[in-house]
Amino acid sequence: MTRNEGGRPLGIGLIGTGYMGKCHALAWNAVAAVFGDVARPRLEMLCEVNEDLARERAAALGFERAGADWRMLVADPAVDVVSITTPNQFHPEMAIAALEAGKHVWCEKPMAPALADARAMARAARESGRVAILGYNYIQNPMFREIEAMIAGGAIGTPFQLRAEMDEDFMADPATPFNWKSASSSGHGALDDFGVHPLSFAHRLFGKAERVFCDMARPFATRPDADGARAVETHDMANVLLRFAGGVQASLLLNRSAWGRKGRIAVQVFGSQGAIVYDQERMNEVELYRAEGPVARQGFSRILAGPAHPPYDRFVPAPGHGLGFNDLKVIECRELLRRIAGEPSVTIGFEEGLEIERTVDAAARAFEAGGWVEV
Amino acid sequence: MTRNEGGRPLGIGLIGTGYMGKCHALAWNAVAAVFGDVARPRLEMLCEVNEDLARERAAALGFERAGADWRMLVADPAVDVVSITTPNQFHPEMAIAALEAGKHVWCEKPMAPALADARAMARAARESGRVAILGYNYIQNPMFREIEAMIAGGAIGTPFQLRAEMDEDFMADPATPFNWKSASSSGHGALDDFGVHPLSFAHRLFGKAERVFCDMARPFATRPDADGARAVETHDMANVLLRFAGGVQASLLLNRSAWGRKGRIAVQVFGSQGAIVYDQERMNEVELYRAEGPVARQGFSRILAGPAHPPYDRFVPAPGHGLGFNDLKVIECRELLRRIAGEPSVTIGFEEGLEIERTVDAAARAFEAGGWVEV
Amino acid sequence: MTRNEGGRPLGIGLIGTGYMGKCHALAWNAVAAVFGDVARPRLEMLCEVNEDLARERAAALGFERAGADWRMLVADPAVDVVSITTPNQFHPEMAIAALEAGKHVWCEKPMAPALADARAMARAARESGRVAILGYNYIQNPMFREIEAMIAGGAIGTPFQLRAEMDEDFMADPATPFNWKSASSSGHGALDDFGVHPLSFAHRLFGKAERVFCDMARPFATRPDADGARAVETHDMANVLLRFAGGVQASLLLNRSAWGRKGRIAVQVFGSQGAIVYDQERMNEVELYRAEGPVARQGFSRILAGPAHPPYDRFVPAPGHGLGFNDLKVIECRELLRRIAGEPSVTIGFEEGLEIERTVDAAARAFEAGGWVEV
Amino acid sequence: MTRNEGGRPLGIGLIGTGYMGKCHALAWNAVAAVFGDVARPRLEMLCEVNEDLARERAAALGFERAGADWRMLVADPAVDVVSITTPNQFHPEMAIAALEAGKHVWCEKPMAPALADARAMARAARESGRVAILGYNYIQNPMFREIEAMIAGGAIGTPFQLRAEMDEDFMADPATPFNWKSASSSGHGALDDFGVHPLSFAHRLFGKAERVFCDMARPFATRPDADGARAVETHDMANVLLRFAGGVQASLLLNRSAWGRKGRIAVQVFGSQGAIVYDQERMNEVELYRAEGPVARQGFSRILAGPAHPPYDRFVPAPGHGLGFNDLKVIECRELLRRIAGEPSVTIGFEEGLEIERTVDAAARAFEAGGWVEV
Repeated sequence: MTRNEGGRPLGIGLIGTGYMGKCHALAWNAVAAVFGDVARPRLEMLCEVNEDLARERAAALGFERAGADWRMLVADPAVDVVSITTPNQFHPEMAIAALEAGKHVWCEKPMAPALADARAMARAARESGRVAILGYNYIQNPMFREIEAMIAGGAIGTPFQLRAEMDEDFMADPATPFNWKSASSSGHGALDDFGVHPLSFAHRLFGKAERVFCDMARPFATRPDADGARAVETHDMANVLLRFAGGVQASLLLNRSAWGRKGRIAVQVFGSQGAIVYDQERMNEVELYRAEGPVARQGFSRILAGPAHPPYDRFVPAPGHGLGFNDLKVIECRELLRRIAGEPSVTIGFEEGLEIERTVDAAARAFEAGGWVEV
Repeated sequence: MTRNEGGRPLGIGLIGTGYMGKCHALAWNAVAAVFGDVARPRLEMLCEVNEDLARERAAALGFERAGADWRMLVADPAVDVVSITTPNQFHPEMAIAALEAGKHVWCEKPMAPALADARAMARAARESGRVAILGYNYIQNPMFREIEAMIAGGAIGTPFQLRAEMDEDFMADPATPFNWKSASSSGHGALDDFGVHPLSFAHRLFGKAERVFCDMARPFATRPDADGARAVETHDMANVLLRFAGGVQASLLLNRSAWGRKGRIAVQVFGSQGAIVYDQERMNEVELYRAEGPVARQGFSRILAGPAHPPYDRFVPAPGHGLGFNDLKVIECRELLRRIAGEPSVTIGFEEGLEIERTVDAAARAFEAGGWVEV
Repeated sequence: MTRNEGGRPLGIGLIGTGYMGKCHALAWNAVAAVFGDVARPRLEMLCEVNEDLARERAAALGFERAGADWRMLVADPAVDVVSITTPNQFHPEMAIAALEAGKHVWCEKPMAPALADARAMARAARESGRVAILGYNYIQNPMFREIEAMIAGGAIGTPFQLRAEMDEDFMADPATPFNWKSASSSGHGALDDFGVHPLSFAHRLFGKAERVFCDMARPFATRPDADGARAVETHDMANVLLRFAGGVQASLLLNRSAWGRKGRIAVQVFGSQGAIVYDQERMNEVELYRAEGPVARQGFSRILAGPAHPPYDRFVPAPGHGLGFNDLKVIECRELLRRIAGEPSVTIGFEEGLEIERTVDAAARAFEAGGWVEV
Repeated sequence: MTRNEGGRPLGIGLIGTGYMGKCHALAWNAVAAVFGDVARPRLEMLCEVNEDLARERAAALGFERAGADWRMLVADPAVDVVSITTPNQFHPEMAIAALEAGKHVWCEKPMAPALADARAMARAARESGRVAILGYNYIQNPMFREIEAMIAGGAIGTPFQLRAEMDEDFMADPATPFNWKSASSSGHGALDDFGVHPLSFAHRLFGKAERVFCDMARPFATRPDADGARAVETHDMANVLLRFAGGVQASLLLNRSAWGRKGRIAVQVFGSQGAIVYDQERMNEVELYRAEGPVARQGFSRILAGPAHPPYDRFVPAPGHGLGFNDLKVIECRELLRRIAGEPSVTIGFEEGLEIERTVDAAARAFEAGGWVEV
């Protein structure tokens, strides 16, 4: 069911048109054309910080109406689903208001800077009876689906170790001035900025983390500002060790000052019969090693994305032609529609997202404590 | 200018909704949202082989009207641009009719099975004064743009050799029954099916081919059919040697029976000061070697696509996040709009496309002759 | 000076002819031919567990005399240098005896199962005035030398993070019966079996570790034995976090049950101006990223080993032709001769090796404590 | 039998101690130690251009006697095998003299600048009844052996296409002065300098070439010399197309002006059930694709060299630790000893080498003719 209770295609409201807002808009424009099995959503209304910008963006992004008041948007009867892509601090208020107004919510991750707010969001979702999911788009990659299928199907036997690295270099230059990312008000640093992504992988594959240890560090003690230099308050690097309920040992190495890394989320999973290797920078590939057949022929197989990895087939009928980052949001959009229709769906709801945020919070406490913390 | 002479946004007609038809439709849906600097096109009408299918696809792809008569579409006054994505044999009639009706044409490559038809298309385009371009989408990859910039800027000195390989494996299984791809009516085989793509690269980089040699071969003499086996008439493999006007020596190795290759277009360019390496299967990367600095530090640099490679920035503001195959069509669409607006544009028009088809034709004759043929 | 005090070429004694013993023998046979600047050593005597085996190996390995009594070997006046390649538990007794007999010692790593023994060995070396080095051959790779030169020369600015992974799969099969590697008498498991190698890298690059945290795990609780199953006492997996004196944050991920990994020692170093990536499985390559020049051209450069990376040039005059694992021992042998001659030398002596073993010991204690341990 | 007719270990004579001469010497020093199943050869005599150099080299390389007269060496009764590593033009006279003196001959490739001389060498070998082999060391790589085994065992079904590229960059710099490599007296250029190596692969895998086409080109028309500039007479680039007796279509792309390539011999073999990919720059790896099992799991497997690929096991007992270029010569040496002992052996004798040189000669004629030439 991709129509609302009145039988009309779902009406969409979008708050924010920055990096992820545009990404949501592209997904809403494309989802019906790509999948061919959903009613084409009505792009009803879009909010930006002022009316002029809102109108300009609505024209480009194909939304019918535009405004500067997000409360009007969440109250609008023509709107069935609200995409929230504003800065993290606004997520709680907007998401809770939308849920209370009876809308479904598609909110970008992470949920909120403070764990208490995330808890409130999860509670609002539960009480509303509406669908509320988070934008963990990397889990939508057909190659990550294939990894899930490999593990579930026993392709590597019993998994016992996970390694994940997430690295970019937007904080790598010591000459980058002090900005909000270096202020403690933005959170811990790489830990929460990055950690939630590999944790979304881990959550899908191995469930809840049980205990966690963490070491955070600053590559640069200060950064330039108007007065010369200002002490950096966040940590651009975090090394996290974890244990999962099923016994899996894990490590997350997070660095947003890693020169040369642009969108690296490198994952290795080792099991009793094989191993899986993946890197988001080459998101159309996954490598599988299986301990079977003659030893002289064993090796990591580099598998290229293709129609055998649904829903790749909805985008391109030929293998090896490559999906892109924005395509993942289109898949996420389709999964959201599935969840709204009450169908099985690959999504991380507010409740599940809260688990991820609790793990991040435990890691931060472990760093302070210098020892293991139970999640 | 992305509006028509009446000041309205351009009206789009789409003929065909298969592999490339859907790709065109996705591009027409996305181009305004991605680029933000064009009037959102009106998706006026779509044609398919019957009305039911046409209506179904129009609903999914966002077109207002649907029909089974392409002649009505090309005559429709609300249509300004016609996307032609039908099988190659229909291209000439449709493209010429559209041009004669005063429409701009966006036609998938190759132009036509017969060189004479391609000539007629080029003539019609010239006489119409309208824009007529071919769907050579690989040249739209920002990484290919970067290759052009590297060569134009002297990053590898004077280029003197080009190697290109294009390989897929959809004909690699000897158990695949005889189908139209094995019939001579479809053309020569890998030579024209694949050759035009690397030739579009070569054309952009080095202009016209001067002479050509060709060896074609069949991996399988027969293929299964209802009567047991039928002799294969096309050649799934072609090795082509060329010389370009500026003196560049080139080779094209084409194989559509290459197990394991899915969308490989591997390019190597060697010059007096460096080299460039590219593979479409990793379309977000390009490798550059420069003979400069200490020898102990020289190596091929693997460059990841990012905002520094426009128009990547219109899709994602962060580097290393990856474009996909369908995104290339969105870029091509924007370039078509530029050309319609009389702005500089990266496109291969019918006239230039004819050059590519002439080279293919000369290669086929060289294979018969067993010696060099002048293009 | 590659001659002894009597002016004769150095006389060599070899104890053990297994994996590393043969490797030492190959190095002693090759060092003069490869380097061309040392007196060809006299291969005097070889010891094995029995005389027959000793004689057979001496004939193959080119040693003049053979025996089963290592004490005779270390006492032999014709022997100047003793290669010790027996199981770790024998290292202390043999090395100390050889040093006390006035011989130089080339002992395989790690020093000894117990830290106290390693301390005794370091003391014996110090008191003897003789050269005593450990077989940390990976630091002899010309590409590792290049990494040292890069860092020392500021190619990546100030380094602030090290990641190292060491993985093999010889313990990955759950069907492998319980053997000495699973018994606690062999040590901790991956931590000491593997950890010393990446620590030898870290020691060369960043000096002493200051504090360490460690999580060890067992992929398999039991292994098959004659009685059905026996509880595994060692840990095949260890995740270690460290801080070095200069402030470098480090992680060592060690796994000897990592299916598909054969000789992986993957190293990443991040600094304020660039990054370095290396993997021992591709030991003739190193990757360097430098944050300089136009952003559109920045990428990791894959540098192939060549004569510009001495002493590669002594093995092959052409670049890209590849050194092998055994060649590293030949380089180590040359460095040992340099140290004996009192020249600057890239070697890890007993004193420095003790530092590495102390770090391993601290990690084991940190695992017990569940918190940081000062080294 | 690795002893001579008198029951003594074979006596070795070496002519030339340059690049390949040193490589032979290292192999003669190592072969008994590595393999452990051959009598340790006696390194009898070595010749260089003058006595001083010869003595110096003999001391370093472990030869007992030294001289400047190669005729004395080939006549010496203590010499059973003669290694010939001098410049190509000297091969015929030396090899024929050695064979006539009843010695076995191990001669570096190519055989001789002129085809007539190669024919005379093959005749002399035939008439002598002695073993005469050529130094095609790349075929000794255990990974190439694995490729042979894969193809012979049907791992890729019926092979139908071979692609080989051989590239280095020692002629890539236009500032490199005119030297003997640019003079026509040295041969054709890349064609014979490089072509023989991939042809040795092709010869092992697919037997004789039947017909050949060739396009050669010069990256630089002139090179600097004392008088300013001198016209280059050889061709640093050659593109060769071939057909083999069994129907295999092949291409050789050869370039010794290919910036960034250091020791690349890239091979691709396509067959009816799979494909094989190999690159000498990563000589410890081979990639295999098999069209079997679920499509979603198919991919190129990267196989790392290990003990499962004999005789790797004789060098290192652990997989993934890597052989080097010089190790290939040690294997070749062992194969030579096998052939002398009348055992099955992987070697290219003078007769087989002549086939390779005939193919090169036919390619040169095809370039002149501009059409196919039968070999």
